[in-house]
Amino acid sequence: MTAGKLRPVPAAAIAEWHETADVVIAGYGIAGVSAAIEAARSGAQVLILERTSGWGGAAALAGGFVYLGGGTPLQRALGFEDSAENMEKFLLAAVGPGADAAKIADYCRGSLEHYDWLVGNGVPFREALWDEPGWEPPHDEGLAYSGGENAAPFNAVASPAPRGHVPRMRDKRTGERGGGYMLMKPLAETAEALGVRVSYDVRLTRLIVDGERVVGVLARRYGREIAVRAELGVVLATGGFAYSEQMVADHAPRLIGRPGAAIEEHDGVGILAATAFGAATAHMDATEVAFFGDPQMMARGILVNGQGQRYVTEDTYPGRIGQATLFHQDNQAFLVIDEQAHEEALATETATPVFRVPPTWAAETVAELEADMGLPELALQTTVEVYNTYAAQGLDPLFGKKPEWLRPLTGAVAAFDLRGATAGFPLGGLRTDLDSRVLHVSGEPIPGLFAAGRCTAGICTGGYVSGASLGDGSFYGRRAGLAAAKGEVE
Amino acid sequence: MTAGKLRPVPAAAIAEWHETADVVIAGYGIAGVSAAIEAARSGAQVLILERTSGWGGAAALAGGFVYLGGGTPLQRALGFEDSAENMEKFLLAAVGPGADAAKIADYCRGSLEHYDWLVGNGVPFREALWDEPGWEPPHDEGLAYSGGENAAPFNAVASPAPRGHVPRMRDKRTGERGGGYMLMKPLAETAEALGVRVSYDVRLTRLIVDGERVVGVLARRYGREIAVRAELGVVLATGGFAYSEQMVADHAPRLIGRPGAAIEEHDGVGILAATAFGAATAHMDATEVAFFGDPQMMARGILVNGQGQRYVTEDTYPGRIGQATLFHQDNQAFLVIDEQAHEEALATETATPVFRVPPTWAAETVAELEADMGLPELALQTTVEVYNTYAAQGLDPLFGKKPEWLRPLTGAVAAFDLRGATAGFPLGGLRTDLDSRVLHVSGEPIPGLFAAGRCTAGICTGGYVSGASLGDGSFYGRRAGLAAAKGEVE
Repeated sequence: MTAGKLRPVPAAAIAEWHETADVVIAGYGIAGVSAAIEAARSGAQVLILERTSGWGGAAALAGGFVYLGGGTPLQRALGFEDSAENMEKFLLAAVGPGADAAKIADYCRGSLEHYDWLVGNGVPFREALWDEPGWEPPHDEGLAYSGGENAAPFNAVASPAPRGHVPRMRDKRTGERGGGYMLMKPLAETAEALGVRVSYDVRLTRLIVDGERVVGVLARRYGREIAVRAELGVVLATGGFAYSEQMVADHAPRLIGRPGAAIEEHDGVGILAATAFGAATAHMDATEVAFFGDPQMMARGILVNGQGQRYVTEDTYPGRIGQATLFHQDNQAFLVIDEQAHEEALATETATPVFRVPPTWAAETVAELEADMGLPELALQTTVEVYNTYAAQGLDPLFGKKPEWLRPLTGAVAAFDLRGATAGFPLGGLRTDLDSRVLHVSGEPIPGLFAAGRCTAGICTGGYVSGASLGDGSFYGRRAGLAAAKGEVE
Repeated sequence: MTAGKLRPVPAAAIAEWHETADVVIAGYGIAGVSAAIEAARSGAQVLILERTSGWGGAAALAGGFVYLGGGTPLQRALGFEDSAENMEKFLLAAVGPGADAAKIADYCRGSLEHYDWLVGNGVPFREALWDEPGWEPPHDEGLAYSGGENAAPFNAVASPAPRGHVPRMRDKRTGERGGGYMLMKPLAETAEALGVRVSYDVRLTRLIVDGERVVGVLARRYGREIAVRAELGVVLATGGFAYSEQMVADHAPRLIGRPGAAIEEHDGVGILAATAFGAATAHMDATEVAFFGDPQMMARGILVNGQGQRYVTEDTYPGRIGQATLFHQDNQAFLVIDEQAHEEALATETATPVFRVPPTWAAETVAELEADMGLPELALQTTVEVYNTYAAQGLDPLFGKKPEWLRPLTGAVAAFDLRGATAGFPLGGLRTDLDSRVLHVSGEPIPGLFAAGRCTAGICTGGYVSGASLGDGSFYGRRAGLAAAKGEVE
């Protein structure tokens, strides 16, 4: 009988409680720290269990976009109009079918307050815009487009506004660190100033339950099992499942062999421990996808698939290009660019110089390039013919690339082989409500159990925007802390 | 406290057992009847609980393909070579990343024996081949291609062999019925001759458990709750979740508003009851997709997406066209055909005359047709130019359509608007092992709990072939019955 490995343990079977707090939080990344601050401010005694030896989680290694909008002070200072409704319209279009409309509406309506909360807890945003194609700002600009808001088809759905808010990356004590680190640092300092206790090198293993209520967790500390009692609630903030081979194969197989932007601790343990108690999951197949192409070059060239056909708006959010490539083009992509555009792109600044490799093929004509790339004769030539015909008029009726990036490809041409150039992390996880209560498969909340961050299905249930993970992790982390500290029994 | 709606009930809380059997099977479709026969032959007392008032489930309404191969007597009689290895190579390629390789290998190796078992239990297959494009044979031919085995890219991966086995649709007592009905009927008669008891109008609600073991089910009969004890094992054979709006939205949102080929009883209850006890699921996003195009016309024409680009081998299994359209082309499809091909197609027989509607647009030239269809000038014209250039040589380097269907489109042309012309059912469900034991999220089998059919993730975890559902439902239904009747405790 070994099925008990992840099974919840009845409280009655616990001989000794090694630790006790009102609110017990598993995981000290962005969701965990946000939950801790709110729970502590609500008067709860808070204990964070973190399996590594320091705070940060995946968040501290992230570029640092936090997806915020609705007219934040930073947006307004930089001249952008936005509203909760406008942000909601965009997100509903960008995340695709199956969107959690209630969660998106809630997230957008709460965004201004959430911005103030972050700033109030010491998160700095520099009043500068980065308005060029790119994965991230190349310096410490505080605001950038991070989801294709200003590209087709979304620029016709909602009024474009940049919503990628990046914490300032300079600090007189630490020198220069990534935006995610600079988000985590003041929040961790805030939490600890509020008296939040942290126990490091402690790894969640199972939930402890009393009937239908979660009352604590079992965990391992230096190889020894400990029982931790939560008087009011348990918050799971343990991250995603990018590094569980079984879960990736069963739920998000497009990511097999290509985990990205996650940490090895993202092994799905929080999701497993909760589903072992009947918790529901949602959108386990959804994934963020990074694409290893240079955005400045992509905007100036054309992306074609294994048949030499264009398939995506080249001037959009590169994560959208990654999804289009991995999900819909069998991970086959080539970037075709002419010499002039290539030189222009090389003259721009970039946050990802690693993608500025020499082209795979270069040729005097499109016909030669096509042959060199191994495409059937005419496949690429007709694609370029159609593109050029319209580009000369400043039009792209097929994919809606903006006029500023449209110019016929002429003269010497080159192509980058971007087949297989993707990686990503899963977006699915536990199904939670607006108070971050973990929902049972029956649809009812599980008393005493809360979750936030990438162990939950957040606002991005299909498409993705950069900043959504730090965004919903912090937003619903706060909700989890507030709700857990209330400790109401249904 | 209402989270208990689907929660397992401790056996100790059951005051009265209303029914008892060795093996209790929920659902009397193909998986249930197959489990019942094997359990009864193993000497177990078997009770089937069926929520409708008759046997059949979705199976009895299905066209009736059973996916079998490896050199069945029917394949050999009709001149086809096949082997378990060849079948396995095809299936691994056709179902895509995340395939359950062990299950596919097992299924292929067991296919000959499974064919004999079906025939031995009275399932008749007529020795005739249907070798034309089509969803199903138009008469009662017993064998047809049902997964694109003889089309690109699979015809280069494995030696093409038809594996869609269709039970003979004539019966002197019932006249003509569908293949699925003619599959179910002899099996149901066999089960009942073996003494299997059936209780109709009884709906599974929850599992009854003793520690980590499943020992029975709660069910509703005419509005009253009954407790049914299973001395050896419970088999879930309750079908998929096409008709659970919540589950479709959370797991397979591409099917929102377009459920197909399923019955309303497919509300996911078996999946929910088991996951409430910690059962694992897999591939909940995977879906079969039907496409409302005429296969004879598609093979003779070209399918283009919303940009006027070809995107799929037109002479392949139409379910593969459906998946390509819904998953990868935003459900945008047009069929373009010339007058000669249209007339040839109309002269063929079809099992789906409902798709033989008049074209949406007809024009003297491709340029005119392109304009009528609302496509940007040149988009369709260049597609036809490339297609025709190669078709004249009997080639299709882009998608590999077979030479027999390649001819340049000339003269008057027409197009069918097939945007949104898809429907489907989910393929994901409970994760089971080769003995149809339901696996806990820990990876270990849940003692006493077995499952088969569309409440489980079967052999098709991404791509689909017609006959896979009746195929793995019957194959793993048998395994469930055998394993449950053994009643071994881990």
